[in-house]
Amino acid sequence: MTDDQLGPRPPVVGMVGAGQLARMTCQAAIGLGIGFRVLAATPTDSAALVCADTLIGDYTDQPSLLAFARGCDVVTFDHEQVPGGHLAALEKAVAGPAGPVVRPGPAALRYTQDKLAMRGRLRELGVPCPRYAPVRDVAGVTACAQEWGWPVVLKAVSGGYDGRGVWVCGTPGEAAAVLAHPVAVFAEDHVGFQAELAALVARSPHGQGAAYPVVQTVQRNGVCREVLAPAPGLSPALAADAQRMALELAADLGVTGLLAVELFAAGSRLLVNELAMRPHNSGHWTIEGARTSQFEQHLRAVLDLPLGDPRLAARHVVMANVFGAGGSPAAAGTAGPDIFARYEHVMAADPGVKVHLYGKQARPGRKIGHVTVLGGDLPALRDRAVRAANYLATGNEEGE
Amino acid sequence: MTDDQLGPRPPVVGMVGAGQLARMTCQAAIGLGIGFRVLAATPTDSAALVCADTLIGDYTDQPSLLAFARGCDVVTFDHEQVPGGHLAALEKAVAGPAGPVVRPGPAALRYTQDKLAMRGRLRELGVPCPRYAPVRDVAGVTACAQEWGWPVVLKAVSGGYDGRGVWVCGTPGEAAAVLAHPVAVFAEDHVGFQAELAALVARSPHGQGAAYPVVQTVQRNGVCREVLAPAPGLSPALAADAQRMALELAADLGVTGLLAVELFAAGSRLLVNELAMRPHNSGHWTIEGARTSQFEQHLRAVLDLPLGDPRLAARHVVMANVFGAGGSPAAAGTAGPDIFARYEHVMAADPGVKVHLYGKQARPGRKIGHVTVLGGDLPALRDRAVRAANYLATGNEEGE
Repeated sequence: MTDDQLGPRPPVVGMVGAGQLARMTCQAAIGLGIGFRVLAATPTDSAALVCADTLIGDYTDQPSLLAFARGCDVVTFDHEQVPGGHLAALEKAVAGPAGPVVRPGPAALRYTQDKLAMRGRLRELGVPCPRYAPVRDVAGVTACAQEWGWPVVLKAVSGGYDGRGVWVCGTPGEAAAVLAHPVAVFAEDHVGFQAELAALVARSPHGQGAAYPVVQTVQRNGVCREVLAPAPGLSPALAADAQRMALELAADLGVTGLLAVELFAAGSRLLVNELAMRPHNSGHWTIEGARTSQFEQHLRAVLDLPLGDPRLAARHVVMANVFGAGGSPAAAGTAGPDIFARYEHVMAADPGVKVHLYGKQARPGRKIGHVTVLGGDLPALRDRAVRAANYLATGNEEGE
Repeated sequence: MTDDQLGPRPPVVGMVGAGQLARMTCQAAIGLGIGFRVLAATPTDSAALVCADTLIGDYTDQPSLLAFARGCDVVTFDHEQVPGGHLAALEKAVAGPAGPVVRPGPAALRYTQDKLAMRGRLRELGVPCPRYAPVRDVAGVTACAQEWGWPVVLKAVSGGYDGRGVWVCGTPGEAAAVLAHPVAVFAEDHVGFQAELAALVARSPHGQGAAYPVVQTVQRNGVCREVLAPAPGLSPALAADAQRMALELAADLGVTGLLAVELFAAGSRLLVNELAMRPHNSGHWTIEGARTSQFEQHLRAVLDLPLGDPRLAARHVVMANVFGAGGSPAAAGTAGPDIFARYEHVMAADPGVKVHLYGKQARPGRKIGHVTVLGGDLPALRDRAVRAANYLATGNEEGE
């Protein structure tokens, strides 16, 4: 993008998808004074509720996608689900001096849509990952287990996130049950690790990079519950390795915008688990906890503006996700609206906790918000964050 | 507001007026997950550009105001211009279990609409202010000058802000020129002061109060250029006095929401200069610089939620306003769009500066944005903030 294109009016960034990532990007866009448009499936999507420039449409429908992109300077993404063919068509149809550019482009996004292609590319680049193999049947899984040992992880080639599309199989029977589904999977070594980490970086088309402090993600049932920034106990050398690996990967894969690299810390080794090319749950802490939030950083990167300072704004930052309660159907049904009644307790108990709600109906297990606390005493911060998140979810500080 | 009212759906706050204060309140409302509606004069008003629930209407038209208020749980204000009679009618017509409450209410807002009434009330409460007197003619002004000495300040009884509606008169002739306008004014002693301060507090209907650190406002031609938080060199005792005075005033005047008290520091005395019952320019630094931004705090207060932690998030915070350039008409005409080209320089020069633009056309002298920097070295922070603000305004770090 040239100065000329930025000249006559504020640039407009269009985000395909209108979940909470788009919602929080909308807040950042307001601060920057740029135009921000979302393509939402329904008017009650998280970002559609708050974005002044919302188009309702289906991202799997190519004409809808093209109509959305017209009038945008840059098109970017809340999720990785847009078909690659549509993105190529979008680039061809509207890119150029008068049309938007797609950031990240389809060549990079492909690696978040096809995890087997991603694993292959990482292997080519010499990036350490768990051992993996394409599998078609139980015999293939058993062959992997003979080399790696049980359990074996089966992963959907595309579409999985938040624990969905990942199955840990302890026996051939369990693997057979997964393979019975009509979903393409591959097998992966079940790595023993001390911690799960995430390295979040931004890269601009100019090639500028910025790396956030490496964080620890605390998972339960494959779902991220807490994020600790910076990752406690991580050696400075290993943290620097993770940042360098993420910056190099962003350059090698041609990412523009954010790249989140989820990692296993296994002894002194780092293994890449997952990639995301968008704002990421492991970076929500940056809204208050870093000098530049990941949402502003993503906008700056896709607009090819100089990147912002990614450093911590406090010694420790803890983010905890808020989930819809999974209790009785009656409780689940009222969990959404009840949250506002629960504000009273959470805010009175802890005036320093920052609450972010996404405007989503609280279905059991659904991520409906998050809380952030900052300060000097990590165990105390974790306690405060988890109490607040549990109370918002269930009306009970102990959670479910 | 009871829990029942907060129960069935997110509460909706309606803000009358759609300037930058409403725009930044909109960002805070998104985080809290509440509904937020603005009443805008035009679709290109600062907040109308970004708020998903914008009603276009005239706040001086009572039916428009009533239509806006329906469906809101709370009605609050971006400015003090809504006629008191309309507010009383609004309270009568729609208040109650099914209608919104008006916060702050007309009884409190009156003191920001009628500065003479405000001065009278402050005198009754024993709050120190500059000497003042109602005046109708030059003889009245001259009589004041005989007691206080020239210059004498003439102030519009209502409607003035940002240096508008304030005239410093050094001679009877200058006073006569002001009195020739059809504007009701009063006379005030021109106080010699060391610094201008602002004490920002929040008060909820429950009576909970929270005080932000007292700041220094650096003015030029009656317009705030910089805000320094906390006020440098202010004794802890005087700072505590200012906070206590503002909290007491909020209670005495029955304010719900924010109260900004602008003060003169004259030796060891504090004199009240102005009051505002809404988010205030002297509190923009709180977005990044305090644990709770003034915009979130105002929403929490008017919703009668527990107030947030108002403490500083860094040792020093500096905010500088960005004004439309006042150079040649040609330069002024292009100042708005050019800002986005200038982002490149400002962000590259200082990755830590936080830019906030309001989406307003850059007319000479118009406040179109602000920048904030945080850290430990106050002179360096001021230098960074002023350079960035000047460059955004004029493309020149030295300003005009």
